[in-house]
Amino acid sequence: MASDPDPVQDFCIPYTPKPDSRRIAQLSSLQQCKNASEANADDFIFSGIKSAGDFKESGFSAMSINSKAFPGLNTLGMSFVRADFDLGGINVPHFHPRATEVAMVLEGKVYCGFVDSANRIYAKVIEKGEVMVFPRGLVHFQMNVGDSPATIYGSFNSQNPGLQRIPAAVFGSGIKDELLKKAFGLSGKQIDEMRRKLKPKEENQS
Amino acid sequence: MASDPDPVQDFCIPYTPKPDSRRIAQLSSLQQCKNASEANADDFIFSGIKSAGDFKESGFSAMSINSKAFPGLNTLGMSFVRADFDLGGINVPHFHPRATEVAMVLEGKVYCGFVDSANRIYAKVIEKGEVMVFPRGLVHFQMNVGDSPATIYGSFNSQNPGLQRIPAAVFGSGIKDELLKKAFGLSGKQIDEMRRKLKPKEENQS
Amino acid sequence: MASDPDPVQDFCIPYTPKPDSRRIAQLSSLQQCKNASEANADDFIFSGIKSAGDFKESGFSAMSINSKAFPGLNTLGMSFVRADFDLGGINVPHFHPRATEVAMVLEGKVYCGFVDSANRIYAKVIEKGEVMVFPRGLVHFQMNVGDSPATIYGSFNSQNPGLQRIPAAVFGSGIKDELLKKAFGLSGKQIDEMRRKLKPKEENQS
Amino acid sequence: MASDPDPVQDFCIPYTPKPDSRRIAQLSSLQQCKNASEANADDFIFSGIKSAGDFKESGFSAMSINSKAFPGLNTLGMSFVRADFDLGGINVPHFHPRATEVAMVLEGKVYCGFVDSANRIYAKVIEKGEVMVFPRGLVHFQMNVGDSPATIYGSFNSQNPGLQRIPAAVFGSGIKDELLKKAFGLSGKQIDEMRRKLKPKEENQS
Amino acid sequence: MASDPDPVQDFCIPYTPKPDSRRIAQLSSLQQCKNASEANADDFIFSGIKSAGDFKESGFSAMSINSKAFPGLNTLGMSFVRADFDLGGINVPHFHPRATEVAMVLEGKVYCGFVDSANRIYAKVIEKGEVMVFPRGLVHFQMNVGDSPATIYGSFNSQNPGLQRIPAAVFGSGIKDELLKKAFGLSGKQIDEMRRKLKPKEENQS
Amino acid sequence: MASDPDPVQDFCIPYTPKPDSRRIAQLSSLQQCKNASEANADDFIFSGIKSAGDFKESGFSAMSINSKAFPGLNTLGMSFVRADFDLGGINVPHFHPRATEVAMVLEGKVYCGFVDSANRIYAKVIEKGEVMVFPRGLVHFQMNVGDSPATIYGSFNSQNPGLQRIPAAVFGSGIKDELLKKAFGLSGKQIDEMRRKLKPKEENQS
Repeated sequence: MASDPDPVQDFCIPYTPKPDSRRIAQLSSLQQCKNASEANADDFIFSGIKSAGDFKESGFSAMSINSKAFPGLNTLGMSFVRADFDLGGINVPHFHPRATEVAMVLEGKVYCGFVDSANRIYAKVIEKGEVMVFPRGLVHFQMNVGDSPATIYGSFNSQNPGLQRIPAAVFGSGIKDELLKKAFGLSGKQIDEMRRKLKPKEENQS
Repeated sequence: MASDPDPVQDFCIPYTPKPDSRRIAQLSSLQQCKNASEANADDFIFSGIKSAGDFKESGFSAMSINSKAFPGLNTLGMSFVRADFDLGGINVPHFHPRATEVAMVLEGKVYCGFVDSANRIYAKVIEKGEVMVFPRGLVHFQMNVGDSPATIYGSFNSQNPGLQRIPAAVFGSGIKDELLKKAFGLSGKQIDEMRRKLKPKEENQS
Repeated sequence: MASDPDPVQDFCIPYTPKPDSRRIAQLSSLQQCKNASEANADDFIFSGIKSAGDFKESGFSAMSINSKAFPGLNTLGMSFVRADFDLGGINVPHFHPRATEVAMVLEGKVYCGFVDSANRIYAKVIEKGEVMVFPRGLVHFQMNVGDSPATIYGSFNSQNPGLQRIPAAVFGSGIKDELLKKAFGLSGKQIDEMRRKLKPKEENQS
Repeated sequence: MASDPDPVQDFCIPYTPKPDSRRIAQLSSLQQCKNASEANADDFIFSGIKSAGDFKESGFSAMSINSKAFPGLNTLGMSFVRADFDLGGINVPHFHPRATEVAMVLEGKVYCGFVDSANRIYAKVIEKGEVMVFPRGLVHFQMNVGDSPATIYGSFNSQNPGLQRIPAAVFGSGIKDELLKKAFGLSGKQIDEMRRKLKPKEENQS
Repeated sequence: MASDPDPVQDFCIPYTPKPDSRRIAQLSSLQQCKNASEANADDFIFSGIKSAGDFKESGFSAMSINSKAFPGLNTLGMSFVRADFDLGGINVPHFHPRATEVAMVLEGKVYCGFVDSANRIYAKVIEKGEVMVFPRGLVHFQMNVGDSPATIYGSFNSQNPGLQRIPAAVFGSGIKDELLKKAFGLSGKQIDEMRRKLKPKEENQS
Repeated sequence: MASDPDPVQDFCIPYTPKPDSRRIAQLSSLQQCKNASEANADDFIFSGIKSAGDFKESGFSAMSINSKAFPGLNTLGMSFVRADFDLGGINVPHFHPRATEVAMVLEGKVYCGFVDSANRIYAKVIEKGEVMVFPRGLVHFQMNVGDSPATIYGSFNSQNPGLQRIPAAVFGSGIKDELLKKAFGLSGKQIDEMRRKLKPKEENQS
């Protein structure tokens, strides 16, 4: 499976000019490679997920390390995530538009699963050292069902897999009430309530 | 963007042996091409979406024509859909794991939109002859907002784009109540109610 | 099938600086994305093919909407075309170097077909609501054989499928006479005549 | 550029059961790999183009070595061709739907060229040791303009690039006269004449 | 980056008929998918790398989990490896022909590095929780430089990345002595000695 | 097989601004296409490998023509190499991280081979007019075993296949002695000696 274009050189660490103007800001989204002779080992090493992120009150923290966070990944077709769960913490139903994910449990017991195009669910509790694959683009989710914090390390076959968290994407994005009411069989009041709950919470997490 | 492997011949209409045994049924999922000399124009023409599907009570009907329904598409990286909307009919928030969609309004006025990875919404009412693109893998939706039935013709850059309809995938698939309650801020009773409403309705539509 | 690189973000509407100098003109061919926060629904909607193009005397008009005409398509791997045919109007034998086409008849009766690598023809008259697939890179053609104007809407699995119209590419491009005479078994006078007829006509259409 | 799917193993020499029945014939189009332990060096070596093919009266001979002729190429995304030209011999305008070609002149002086989507021609006489690239899917052609036989060795980035020779594809395939007359500005008599000349000639060459 | 073809369905767990004959053995290399309705969560979970493999005397153990070992990965474009190192244990210079690798240190201190096409080295000691990326197809290596056993978890963007371990591929495969002597500036005696050492050791590891 | 992204236009000859500053140097690695109307046939023709390179004392010379050396190849997914061998000259074990190679012997008798992921060797002497395929990313090698100079012309399915020459990549790049000693069963003195021999020699060749 392929979610990214193929590379045409060994690697390409983006050259990022200082963002001192609107125009430069635009240019910085171009793919400009540093001269390879100026690259060194540190460009290919990431040290920012050695410990858990901050759970705050949500009980869940995810650090998604795509090619923006770790430029050495650029053009190489991979990225990764560290997800930490407090007791009972959840990773809400979500999916990645451009990648398959292979997730390994580093600590704890986690209920993991995904849903296929026929609405069949594939879910189970897995433990430290076990690995589950979430096929490209399918809705999946996790919940810490053990009695201690849990950690998952996921890797993706895209340098920027994208992310749509269902509650925020559907109820926090501004889709017309009438459509949501019909789609989910909810009342206007219920929709409002969900919006109130979901909007700020997601903003903290994004 | 690419959602399918490249072809290695002009075309490959699957050769489908009669499904008279379990083993043959398995074999039929293999990619066996008919001899090209036995193919003819009819293999590349689809006539099954000349008129609307049956709305029933849901007010919406979609006929997805992938390479199973239209074998001539096999290996060619495209497929299409005809969606018909009665007054107020909706196509619930959904996405295609393996394709971008380009949708043209054939009749009527339709509120169309999608949500990006940052939960921003891009939505507007479009009319007969207008075209909207839904980027690969992003949640999108439609609702007939005109005063007559509406029809959309969508095309995909995959022979089998896949489909996840959010209400059924999330509330009709059997994800644990506790996870859903936390994810959407709903009570157990509300979840039950949504399940009751969504399960059978989706089954009719799939 | 894949004719374009995979995307590495949800979408990328090209940022096009004003073409006020030669250098900027060059730069504008780079892929610079607008900040997603500055995009809106209109960037993903195309309204320019609601009515037929101008037939002039040729009896045929095609509006090809690739990622230059509709920047929202950029990186998304799709584009489309509206083709209108007056009575007896034809779309000359042509092909798209980088895409499969799925063509739906919106109005009229159209003789549609393609030729495969073994010079076998797959052609038939199709009508409103019928769909024909033209496999990637193969020569295909259309002719209005009904008694009223006809319209076709085609979609492609490339943001820029390319186009080679055989008469103009072969007889209007300047290939040496000697080669053309041998290739087609024509006299020099016949070649000259075809050139005279084909050159200006194609220029109007391109 | 990619015209084939990526491999998922080092190589895959197709396992071809004896074609002793219709059903086996179908099966043989499946991709079945020989056990790698039964492969040897000869599976990856091709010795059939050491000398020129037979010109017969046409003055041109091409031996296209795709993955059918040389099974070791299967899944590896490449193939090649040897083309020999007698004095004044031509390779008629043609294109490969699924590959770029890089052509090296092994002997002689050859007028080589291609036409782009804007009908611009890129053509020149090149000599032994010179190389010309024909971009994927564009019409190209060659003619021996030296005073001795010429030979070209071309390679492709597809295991099966496909081939459409314009004269035979357009005038030898059975496209309706009326369409051809309009497309090329020819009379019915001229079309008939071209058909008579092109049909058998192409059949010898294919 | 892409090393595998794109999927055309949500997933495809290979259907493997019993290998009771030579012919069936061949057939089993075909891609036959189990009916999705017969799949369950266990098909997508791998539990075989919860603990280290057996170091034996080599001080190193790698368990490569590709789509043969874990059929649920089939068509999904990813695979993974667990590598364990005793004190001073090494993973010899090697590369994967069809994938980038992202490697995370689960335990210990490991000297990790790769070499680019200009023979520049990118190497450093990394620790638990740090991640290094090895670009597709480049030679890389690891050595436990801490004072306790070390473990690395690597993931790949191919379901079957392939592996060439340089010592065995070059000195243990049977390349002519004369070529090796010239290539490495070694004497025949030295080559013999390396062969003796490398042949059996690699066989234990493969 | 695919080692490069797909093109999205007929061709794209990079526009290279003058490298008069560090910033421009960076910009020049961007993909800026010349206006197609300013391109001509010479942009697609390469004349630099009509005769052999300089053997110097090494007995081997390779001219790798990727998209940097021949900008017309840019985005077209192919490149090529001319390799000349004096009597007994060798092309050391090496591989291309991003391409399959199809190699034709233009002159002489050459021992050619490659090694697969199971360390099996596929090697044989081939002669003028014979062709061997080296699957993507696998170690391969050549040696002139005839009694006159030999020449090979290789083509690749990537515009920039990359190259890792094993002796220089492993012994000339600075991998820690301890790791190399263990990996190859060599003494520190032997490693030093190899380094001395390999370092300068490779530098002349790169």
